[in-house]
Amino acid sequence: MSESLAVINCSQLVTLSGPARPRVGPELRQLAVVEDGGMVVRDGHIAEVGSQSEIERLIDKDCEVVDAGGRVVLPGFVDAHAHPVFAGTRANEFEERSQGATYQEIAVRGGGIQATVNLTRAATLDELVASGKRHAEWFIRSGTTTIEAKSGYGLTVEDELKILRAIKRLDEETPLRYVPTFLGAHSIPAEYKSRREEYVSLIIDEMLPRIASEKLAEYCDVFCEASVFTTEESRRILSAARGHGLGLRIHADQLSLSGGAKLAAELSSVTADHLEHTDTAGIAALKSAGVQPVLLPGSVYALGSSRYPPAREMIDAGLAVVLATDFNPGSSPTPAMPMILSLASTQMKMTPAESITAATINAAYSLNRGDKIGSLERGKIADFVIHDCDDYRDLAYFFGIEHPWQVYAGGRRVFARS
Amino acid sequence: MSESLAVINCSQLVTLSGPARPRVGPELRQLAVVEDGGMVVRDGHIAEVGSQSEIERLIDKDCEVVDAGGRVVLPGFVDAHAHPVFAGTRANEFEERSQGATYQEIAVRGGGIQATVNLTRAATLDELVASGKRHAEWFIRSGTTTIEAKSGYGLTVEDELKILRAIKRLDEETPLRYVPTFLGAHSIPAEYKSRREEYVSLIIDEMLPRIASEKLAEYCDVFCEASVFTTEESRRILSAARGHGLGLRIHADQLSLSGGAKLAAELSSVTADHLEHTDTAGIAALKSAGVQPVLLPGSVYALGSSRYPPAREMIDAGLAVVLATDFNPGSSPTPAMPMILSLASTQMKMTPAESITAATINAAYSLNRGDKIGSLERGKIADFVIHDCDDYRDLAYFFGIEHPWQVYAGGRRVFARS
Repeated sequence: MSESLAVINCSQLVTLSGPARPRVGPELRQLAVVEDGGMVVRDGHIAEVGSQSEIERLIDKDCEVVDAGGRVVLPGFVDAHAHPVFAGTRANEFEERSQGATYQEIAVRGGGIQATVNLTRAATLDELVASGKRHAEWFIRSGTTTIEAKSGYGLTVEDELKILRAIKRLDEETPLRYVPTFLGAHSIPAEYKSRREEYVSLIIDEMLPRIASEKLAEYCDVFCEASVFTTEESRRILSAARGHGLGLRIHADQLSLSGGAKLAAELSSVTADHLEHTDTAGIAALKSAGVQPVLLPGSVYALGSSRYPPAREMIDAGLAVVLATDFNPGSSPTPAMPMILSLASTQMKMTPAESITAATINAAYSLNRGDKIGSLERGKIADFVIHDCDDYRDLAYFFGIEHPWQVYAGGRRVFARS
Repeated sequence: MSESLAVINCSQLVTLSGPARPRVGPELRQLAVVEDGGMVVRDGHIAEVGSQSEIERLIDKDCEVVDAGGRVVLPGFVDAHAHPVFAGTRANEFEERSQGATYQEIAVRGGGIQATVNLTRAATLDELVASGKRHAEWFIRSGTTTIEAKSGYGLTVEDELKILRAIKRLDEETPLRYVPTFLGAHSIPAEYKSRREEYVSLIIDEMLPRIASEKLAEYCDVFCEASVFTTEESRRILSAARGHGLGLRIHADQLSLSGGAKLAAELSSVTADHLEHTDTAGIAALKSAGVQPVLLPGSVYALGSSRYPPAREMIDAGLAVVLATDFNPGSSPTPAMPMILSLASTQMKMTPAESITAATINAAYSLNRGDKIGSLERGKIADFVIHDCDDYRDLAYFFGIEHPWQVYAGGRRVFARS
């Protein structure tokens, strides 16, 4: 690439510029769009953002010009909840669910997360990297440039390390940026079903110290649910993780109102994720503690449920809402953030603008990267996408297709539609 | 292209071969998959289908070999209900609906179909062809090779003709095949609101004779709904259409149980489409008359409804179910049949196999082309898609992404992923 790049002829340059904190309330609708805008990128970072005429004055002969052709330009999506490293698929369970079986029934008979755990344990690091690269391509083609990446399909010390090492390699070997999260507390593995206390101890006494010392994760997550990890177990694991310097995230109130949101507030977790069953008291607790809710409508949809999290109530309460794919082989087999925007608008009554904020700048703050990515502002990393439409609302409106025309990471073109 | 083509190394060649009629009941699950299969194409038609070793024996030096690389091969999807020619979008109304407005409220204040009619009347034929080509690319990228294409955004003699002429040009100028349907009875246009009888007469006395004499449509469709065209008006229009030799299709029981399914049965309509509110008596009537139901879950989803048509009851009753996108700028802005397969599995409990049958061979029969397309059988047109997965269930399972790796129409490659 040339060291400097000018992007011109954007129908809308959706900058998301604003205060140096996540957006709340009416701010979620403030996309800070520059109509007929452009920008200059130098050394992988955004150097200038402005009107077409302002940008044109800055173009010199060393500057590569990218003509967006009247298209929309957005920051790359930031996907703050994903499980992108696993072996196999669960298309067989998907077929069973289409015949009426429930997710829980399938889990009880050894399917569900355990099925993916079995396949992932049997896979080599290289195999996980290879399938992870396929998923990385899907994310990029959908306009995402940063994802959070959870472990959680290993559930042994070595297999959790293997997944986190695969994430590290994917971060190095693909254009996608990865933020690693340790999710040893994703499920009680089959061999510990009758001695769950020992598995909790394994996480606390062996997994966490190893992962922290090898710096393989920035966050620790727990699937807090009466039928998975209890509130008390979750508290112990997360408290230990904090002791190792990890940030906290929680799978909370997905299947029942089990106290996950309140625990997130108690522990000042960075995020509480899912929240399909969270009540008004839980929302108030999240607000008081400054916890960001990460809403995952893809899993609600794919499980055939109609119980979406109360997004409007959360926005009205002043929470800095985040949207994410929850990409995983069981409950949410979509890597596509535009699909999540569609679900947010049609099923949760978020406007396209609110959804885009939740999927970019707010998500970046939830990953401690609000100063680096998630908006198109001077000094930020030049992760941006030219979408093949002239109105940002089209990204939520036309669904089931891939919108990106070109994708850039750090100022480098990493995808172009032929 | 070379005159002969061999497709080899298919993990699954999903042929849909079977009886020369639409599939019903358990037949919907019989995809007739050849594992490790291949096929030979000559002069745009399928010459041989068989195992890898059988096909390899037929390869001579004049034969171009396409290595599917262990991927799945399916017939091109056949989309039996689409409105692909219109001007503008309705992203503004989509945004209003995300803020709580209903489709009916928006229609009452001059939005809805009338908004697209206004824009489409103002567009030239060339403009409609240009936007139609963008939509054609989306269909092809999603794995669809034939679509039914309705008029209905003109609602004057000249504007309905303009749309049907655009469809004819798109059929000639794009690789997609179009089956034209006249839908002058899509809505009562604003200027006829107080004299609807005159509009019905305009359709019967002027539009239908012109369209029939210019051979611009194969089918006639009516939006039969108490608030749109009454059952009696629909009967008059469709009876006149039959007199001109057109096949019949009906938008039936979408918003209420208004008798559309029963009218379809009474008139031996080829299809009855939507059917969200059809009851058991309506299903029995469709069965008796051999009418094919065309289910359109994209519009249910995009309107934020949870009232999907009773697909399982229809399959159990022996109806030859069809799935289609209903692609249009108001209620179903998706051209992507894989998205419809996802909705069918997750929301209507159709298996991936049933959904694929409904979106290929059954759809082809509903367009009077069951002998030419919709399956991979000797003598049929070589419209097929190599999808970038090794299990056909993945097409319904992974959602929000574009699956095709290469698309062929008449044996010619019309899309290849870079």
